[in-house]
Amino acid sequence: MDPEEFRKRGKEMVDYVADYLEKIEKRQVFPDVEPGYLRTLIPDCAPQDPESFEDVFKDIEKIIMPGVTHWHSPYFFAYFPSASSFPALLADMLCGGIGCVGFSWVCSLGYIYIAMRLFSLFFFSSQAASPACTELETVMLDWLGKMLSLPEEFLAGKDGQGGGVIQGSASEATLVALLAARTKTIRRVQSEKPELTEADIMGRLVAYASDQAHSSVERAALIGGVKMKNVPSDDTFAVCGSALKKVLDEDKASGLIPFFFCATLGTTPCCSFDKLLELGPICNNENIWMHIDAAYAGSAFICPEFRHLLNGVEFTDSFNFNPHKWLLVNFDCSAMWVKKRSDLIGAFKLEPLYLQHHHQESGLVTDYRHWQIPLGRRFRSLKLWFVLRMYGVTGLQEHIRKHVRLSHQFEHLVLQDERFEICAEVVLGLVCFRLKGSNELNKALLKSINEAKKIHLVPCHLREKFVLRFAICSRTVESTHVKFAWQHISQLATELLKTWEQNGHQQ
Amino acid sequence: MDPEEFRKRGKEMVDYVADYLEKIEKRQVFPDVEPGYLRTLIPDCAPQDPESFEDVFKDIEKIIMPGVTHWHSPYFFAYFPSASSFPALLADMLCGGIGCVGFSWVCSLGYIYIAMRLFSLFFFSSQAASPACTELETVMLDWLGKMLSLPEEFLAGKDGQGGGVIQGSASEATLVALLAARTKTIRRVQSEKPELTEADIMGRLVAYASDQAHSSVERAALIGGVKMKNVPSDDTFAVCGSALKKVLDEDKASGLIPFFFCATLGTTPCCSFDKLLELGPICNNENIWMHIDAAYAGSAFICPEFRHLLNGVEFTDSFNFNPHKWLLVNFDCSAMWVKKRSDLIGAFKLEPLYLQHHHQESGLVTDYRHWQIPLGRRFRSLKLWFVLRMYGVTGLQEHIRKHVRLSHQFEHLVLQDERFEICAEVVLGLVCFRLKGSNELNKALLKSINEAKKIHLVPCHLREKFVLRFAICSRTVESTHVKFAWQHISQLATELLKTWEQNGHQQ
Repeated sequence: MDPEEFRKRGKEMVDYVADYLEKIEKRQVFPDVEPGYLRTLIPDCAPQDPESFEDVFKDIEKIIMPGVTHWHSPYFFAYFPSASSFPALLADMLCGGIGCVGFSWVCSLGYIYIAMRLFSLFFFSSQAASPACTELETVMLDWLGKMLSLPEEFLAGKDGQGGGVIQGSASEATLVALLAARTKTIRRVQSEKPELTEADIMGRLVAYASDQAHSSVERAALIGGVKMKNVPSDDTFAVCGSALKKVLDEDKASGLIPFFFCATLGTTPCCSFDKLLELGPICNNENIWMHIDAAYAGSAFICPEFRHLLNGVEFTDSFNFNPHKWLLVNFDCSAMWVKKRSDLIGAFKLEPLYLQHHHQESGLVTDYRHWQIPLGRRFRSLKLWFVLRMYGVTGLQEHIRKHVRLSHQFEHLVLQDERFEICAEVVLGLVCFRLKGSNELNKALLKSINEAKKIHLVPCHLREKFVLRFAICSRTVESTHVKFAWQHISQLATELLKTWEQNGHQQ
Repeated sequence: MDPEEFRKRGKEMVDYVADYLEKIEKRQVFPDVEPGYLRTLIPDCAPQDPESFEDVFKDIEKIIMPGVTHWHSPYFFAYFPSASSFPALLADMLCGGIGCVGFSWVCSLGYIYIAMRLFSLFFFSSQAASPACTELETVMLDWLGKMLSLPEEFLAGKDGQGGGVIQGSASEATLVALLAARTKTIRRVQSEKPELTEADIMGRLVAYASDQAHSSVERAALIGGVKMKNVPSDDTFAVCGSALKKVLDEDKASGLIPFFFCATLGTTPCCSFDKLLELGPICNNENIWMHIDAAYAGSAFICPEFRHLLNGVEFTDSFNFNPHKWLLVNFDCSAMWVKKRSDLIGAFKLEPLYLQHHHQESGLVTDYRHWQIPLGRRFRSLKLWFVLRMYGVTGLQEHIRKHVRLSHQFEHLVLQDERFEICAEVVLGLVCFRLKGSNELNKALLKSINEAKKIHLVPCHLREKFVLRFAICSRTVESTHVKFAWQHISQLATELLKTWEQNGHQQ
């Protein structure tokens, strides 16, 4: 394909994407296919000779779309939002076109690590994998940090010790924070008790998170080869200081070394908030790295009326949220900040020698490959740059506020129906609700909702209760869609209750 | 921005990208900027009110491009190629438009893990985060595996035990393999010696790779909390069986537990190849997980004349290469296969309960979130699908062969000049060369090349020698560019030698 054909096909693809998003609500939100559907539709192996764009293009509707869950449909109320906006799509096209592989300001590419360790780096001062890629990221994370009123310490500025980085997902951010904490703690304990080996210490380290926390915390501990324990949440599904203190005291008494606590702001099941102001001082006193996972809720903190939910961030070592969830930046863009970049770098950096460059790790130059799991990285900050500028802070605040308004609209509809109950406080864009009655009844309701495929929801479990989660997701969802969803759910509930009554089921 | 404006702006962006790539050779391959250049060009914080697309668009040339290293310029001969092609760009636009977050066939999203562990999954049978995203990936990795003539065991097929997955980078693939090996070995050792704790075993595990291997292996061991040792390579920079055997025997004698060996096919410094046929049987006998990192060279194995370099893959547990390097699929797309998917899954999966779904992990349905570090994933298989179909196997083979031809052209030019020497066998698209003389002389040559900014190279160190790497990178590089590069290098060498002679330097 030459540039001329790309111009033609690219424009056709732009129209296809615009059509897709413009008319998405006419598509059934959830696909009908059975496992293995796709393999039967395409050949067993790659073609020997080139096929035309037309041939590939027509297969999008024939082969791909039948198996797509339409995450941006205004009838999609499952999981949490997955961001999508036109400015982000435009930025991603540019990112693909430039196609640089950014990892560091100076050339010190992982590839060339062998070289880097072995000779002096003096002549690299003017070399770069791509300065623009690194520098825009640092500045965009400062912009974003200011929008959240993060404490100054988390910003890179011109000579700050902290700063932000774009990770692929909140899971990666949690893992990176845990690894940094692990290294820092091992070094500290070894300096206090030189008789202990690294393996001795590793075997005694314990990480903690709420029993409502995302599975990625447990996974990070598994990868990092350390123990992980859940801290019981209270009746608002939040972890409070006394609960953490109790577990820490028990564990320390039995010779373990608490080293990492991941607080959640906006838990996955019901969007509850751990009590930072109680937890922070405890972690600080105990030399425990405190990380905040605010994957979904973090975007809301750009609105002054929700910023109080982040109070206590000043006690933490690292903070993360996903603009690719609720801030209109397409996946992937997970923003992470640390107070001391040297802690992160210490977890990954292998030898001090290739640090000798005078540009390295000032506020000006950042070697992001030391901040993350993969070495290569896309030019993801372009998406942030386009979205922040083309929406402006006010445009993004409007988006958040609209979603919160719609969730309260849904909450009110639920509350007006005596057959239903609300299961957790509605703070942002998520409503947890259920039919008053058994878990079996609610499972049957969810099944009938998802089998009808007019809307899409997923459930959660809050203590013993099976609960339906109604998350405001799509950028284009409006009050009419919420009303439709409620009428649909209400009608299915009526039918279900009738059937159950007829069949003598216990509700 | 509404869909109508997106149509207009999207088409402008397509033209911008087409113009950029069509005229890229007119841009200086390497930027002139100094660290911190970008921060001075843009505001301190995000705008309150929306800016227009025009305002953002004009800043691309003003703010971004001055700091971009043009990786796709035909004058870029640094690192290894970073793939770019028009079909991949089109596929990525579609990926952005669909914007699904694929992680599993069935809904079992990491988010909802809390729910998943707590209740029966019967009603998830027809739910999916996006079946198309998962299924296309499985089938594309089978296509690609067949193109490389991977042993049948590595393919998913309809009911295979192996299969492929797209990772973000070779580093992630190495880490995932190492973690799987770690879990498998801990389980085996614990079953043999139940008196050992996990921490005891962890403290004795050792991973191995060539002294020429990529730093990501060392990094994976660091993350996984295990020791890592380099195995000395021979005078062709390859690891042979006896070298590995020697290290293993020593380590076992001192009570360590060897568990993982990462063989490299196409090392970063000079594209050397570890001797799989000698190493494989040793690893198999010693219960050591053998992983192949063929990040760059792997793409060449689609050509029958290079496939012999992969002989011995049948002994290994996992294999990885990067289509985003040399197979015209834009970053990120790193292809990884395993013989036993259950080994990978075992390393990550936290509880058996949420495995109870009958669709789970057959050849038909794959839960890729158990195969990788992040939980969410883009619809990256679309890029493979577009590229494999629109180039065809023959088109991709032509691309590889052209690059290999050009590297041999450069090699011949070097060999005709008695002042220079070739430092390692030229097998694929990389030529390692230097001036006969001191390392200082060669450092000075590289400095003068990169300061002139007409072409861009990076160096490596082979044993004691400072060496220049000339990698054929761009999709559009032609014989004329290679000739130009050589004439330029040759002329700079003449000038340098003259200056050094005048100044009485030792060459």
